[in-house]
Amino acid sequence: MAIEWAGLGPEVLLRLDRDGAEPLRAQLEGGLRAAIREGRLQAGERLPSTRELARQLGVSRGLVQDCYGQLYAEGYLTARVGSATRVAAVAATSSTVDKSRPERPAPGTDFASGVPDLASFPRADWGWAVREACRTVATADLHYGDPRGDRTLRRVLAGYLRRVRAAVADPADIVVCTGFAQGLGLALRALSRQGVGTVAVEDPGYGRGETLDAVGRLGFEVVPVPVDEGGVDVAALARTGARAVVLTPAHQSPTGVVLAPDRRHALAAWAAERDAVIVEDDYDAEFRYDREPVGTLQGIAAARVVLLGTVSKSLAPAMRLGWVVCPPHLTAAIVEEKRLSDRGSPVLDQLALARLIESGRYDRHLRRMRGVYAARRQALVDALARHAPGVRLTGLAAGFHAVAHLPAGRREEDVVAAARERSVGLYGMSAFRMSGATTPAQLVIGFGNLGERAIEEGIAAVGDLLGTKGG
Amino acid sequence: MAIEWAGLGPEVLLRLDRDGAEPLRAQLEGGLRAAIREGRLQAGERLPSTRELARQLGVSRGLVQDCYGQLYAEGYLTARVGSATRVAAVAATSSTVDKSRPERPAPGTDFASGVPDLASFPRADWGWAVREACRTVATADLHYGDPRGDRTLRRVLAGYLRRVRAAVADPADIVVCTGFAQGLGLALRALSRQGVGTVAVEDPGYGRGETLDAVGRLGFEVVPVPVDEGGVDVAALARTGARAVVLTPAHQSPTGVVLAPDRRHALAAWAAERDAVIVEDDYDAEFRYDREPVGTLQGIAAARVVLLGTVSKSLAPAMRLGWVVCPPHLTAAIVEEKRLSDRGSPVLDQLALARLIESGRYDRHLRRMRGVYAARRQALVDALARHAPGVRLTGLAAGFHAVAHLPAGRREEDVVAAARERSVGLYGMSAFRMSGATTPAQLVIGFGNLGERAIEEGIAAVGDLLGTKGG
Repeated sequence: MAIEWAGLGPEVLLRLDRDGAEPLRAQLEGGLRAAIREGRLQAGERLPSTRELARQLGVSRGLVQDCYGQLYAEGYLTARVGSATRVAAVAATSSTVDKSRPERPAPGTDFASGVPDLASFPRADWGWAVREACRTVATADLHYGDPRGDRTLRRVLAGYLRRVRAAVADPADIVVCTGFAQGLGLALRALSRQGVGTVAVEDPGYGRGETLDAVGRLGFEVVPVPVDEGGVDVAALARTGARAVVLTPAHQSPTGVVLAPDRRHALAAWAAERDAVIVEDDYDAEFRYDREPVGTLQGIAAARVVLLGTVSKSLAPAMRLGWVVCPPHLTAAIVEEKRLSDRGSPVLDQLALARLIESGRYDRHLRRMRGVYAARRQALVDALARHAPGVRLTGLAAGFHAVAHLPAGRREEDVVAAARERSVGLYGMSAFRMSGATTPAQLVIGFGNLGERAIEEGIAAVGDLLGTKGG
Repeated sequence: MAIEWAGLGPEVLLRLDRDGAEPLRAQLEGGLRAAIREGRLQAGERLPSTRELARQLGVSRGLVQDCYGQLYAEGYLTARVGSATRVAAVAATSSTVDKSRPERPAPGTDFASGVPDLASFPRADWGWAVREACRTVATADLHYGDPRGDRTLRRVLAGYLRRVRAAVADPADIVVCTGFAQGLGLALRALSRQGVGTVAVEDPGYGRGETLDAVGRLGFEVVPVPVDEGGVDVAALARTGARAVVLTPAHQSPTGVVLAPDRRHALAAWAAERDAVIVEDDYDAEFRYDREPVGTLQGIAAARVVLLGTVSKSLAPAMRLGWVVCPPHLTAAIVEEKRLSDRGSPVLDQLALARLIESGRYDRHLRRMRGVYAARRQALVDALARHAPGVRLTGLAAGFHAVAHLPAGRREEDVVAAARERSVGLYGMSAFRMSGATTPAQLVIGFGNLGERAIEEGIAAVGDLLGTKGG
């Protein structure tokens, strides 16, 4: 049923659907709001009396009175004693256009790094764990809670980190957060308030990407420190004068080197001497192939290290669940930053993770994934040997990315561009360098989210671009 | 089995449990790490040879070699060619003491405001919704995603906010966040980058609590604007010169007044004229008793309003799930702040909320809670009439708190202190005033998380403190 209002111009239509699920009153209110917002009813226009509109629409006068009252209370209508109800001045709405940026279509085979096998996310286990959390959560724990996070998860995480990551983890010094980005932000804000103004980062490392963007926005000066086969160059770090550094000791991102034992001690000594803090990004060390995962640097220098971990690589990035293990002198400051930024992380997710770990399902998933990634790693090694002779692979000890060193004569940017033409996503080391330098020509090859066959076929498709020319 | 090492002093013990679940190698590694950290093995001490230790422990030499190798890689041991393995210098750990603050014991009956009925949290519905989310989430959506949040939830929220809150909501301008604290922080950071330096707030309002703390930490000057029976005083707001204000229009917190229609228009005009932004904290308007909820201010001034909403009152604070509806000119800046602070909110929770709303279960829960709160509200009105004559109640139109105006001669702080002696938690208006002033003497009485009987008994226990003396 469509009606036309006498005196309001023929274009002002109001449509009521008597067979629809929505109550008539809601339809009338919604229709009037839309007409006002969209300018079909203009500011100052006189509305029909409630009696008249009720008659036109065939509804009760009380219903129209309620509508007018509601829209008056919300500011869509004006009313004065002894005067007609009129349309108020209301800002017109913009058109409903999705302003999200169009993404460029993903390549057929994408060797992007930093992505775990998303298809292996343990859907059933997580669903089970959340349901268990819903079933067992204490009513009082549904309130605002400790900004550090749920005490059960902190206890379970402390045990896990001691056992699996050789960390020094006291539940009282753990702050549950929503992932690496937030954890780093919390730690750096706390340091900033204590007067730290410069942060050193590994180079290659985060490159000029969003992590450095975030650090820069906090007002820090960022200084790069070179990484070699033994990890970060500690002497070069000392020369920067920085009192904070962000490191990936267990499996350097992106070179894949493991921080050498003497460097570990040199770092601990540097931090003690300079009253400095090391932020340890422990992002993928659970997946180590030739031996047990190397324990955290935090384990030997707990008083100077902020340890950051997440489930982004072990479960999925979309979980947004991580933790900060604070050195005791920074705990209060980091907790305060967490409290001010979001009052604490979602509790049911925390309880679910605790349940997942305590039940053994988390370890079981990690064991299974270690096998999955080991097979993919081998597929990459084999495919490169077969299709791209002359390419050397390093950084394969852990995680699910490696560095391919291109033979002389290959230009990184040419290889990346040519591969993209063939729908294969390759990524140059230049993106991870602060300078953006394209030499030495290297690729950072992720294999976490690609099946063995896709790895083989992807490398086969670009082998001639990578390997020794004419090889 | 406990062993004592020859040459290492009698106090250095290493306990291996052959019947335990933990593998011997993990036990040996963990035991050595602990001994080193706790100083029972001191830096420089010589370790037994792998052959000797294997013999003492009755384990294979390979196992001990693996252990030593691991601890060397982690920096606990030093090794030089031709020399014995020795303990490295490692920082000793602090003792494991829980440093969490002891909370003062909660009163027997706590009339704190801002807490919904936690026992009514729809555990089964939420568990169902998360499981549905786990079952149906697209694998690609387990990756890092759009920092604005999941597109399904943004679409569903837009529909919900249009329908229930009369908001102008385009999914492209919605940013899912982890609650009010984060949403406010994102909006204010974006404004700060655009040169806004002063934020006005309602008084009474957040008082000097953590919200203002957070605003102050962002570097803003905070100016109070008085609230009267019609809501915030817009003329006073204009005089402050502020270009941003945080408001609670639908049900002012804590006075409970509803922003009057003329004030709505005056605010919209003020914002347009001054190029100012209104942050609308739409915290509990779903629960309105005498009529439909009053629609948002955002609905009539979408270009100037940042609308913040959460499920903290509708489901539970522990969910940490909310949204920001951005005015289009601020969307990009607010999305950028979200991206930098945590790269987006947890995806499965978002999909679960979308499922909860789309299934009708969310509306059903709200309807049920409206009944629950209406009964509690009536219990409060009745109990005060019965036990505390002379106390006037205001602000009861919506939500689950009200303001009790104490009769002449009653001092707010005396009443609060005396009630606490009787294990009843009452809260004075002074905590919500920027000045901390204790006059006029008022209490903010929350009844969301108290059953009808607890309300009756709680008020009965303190009625003589509140009402007309001798009444």
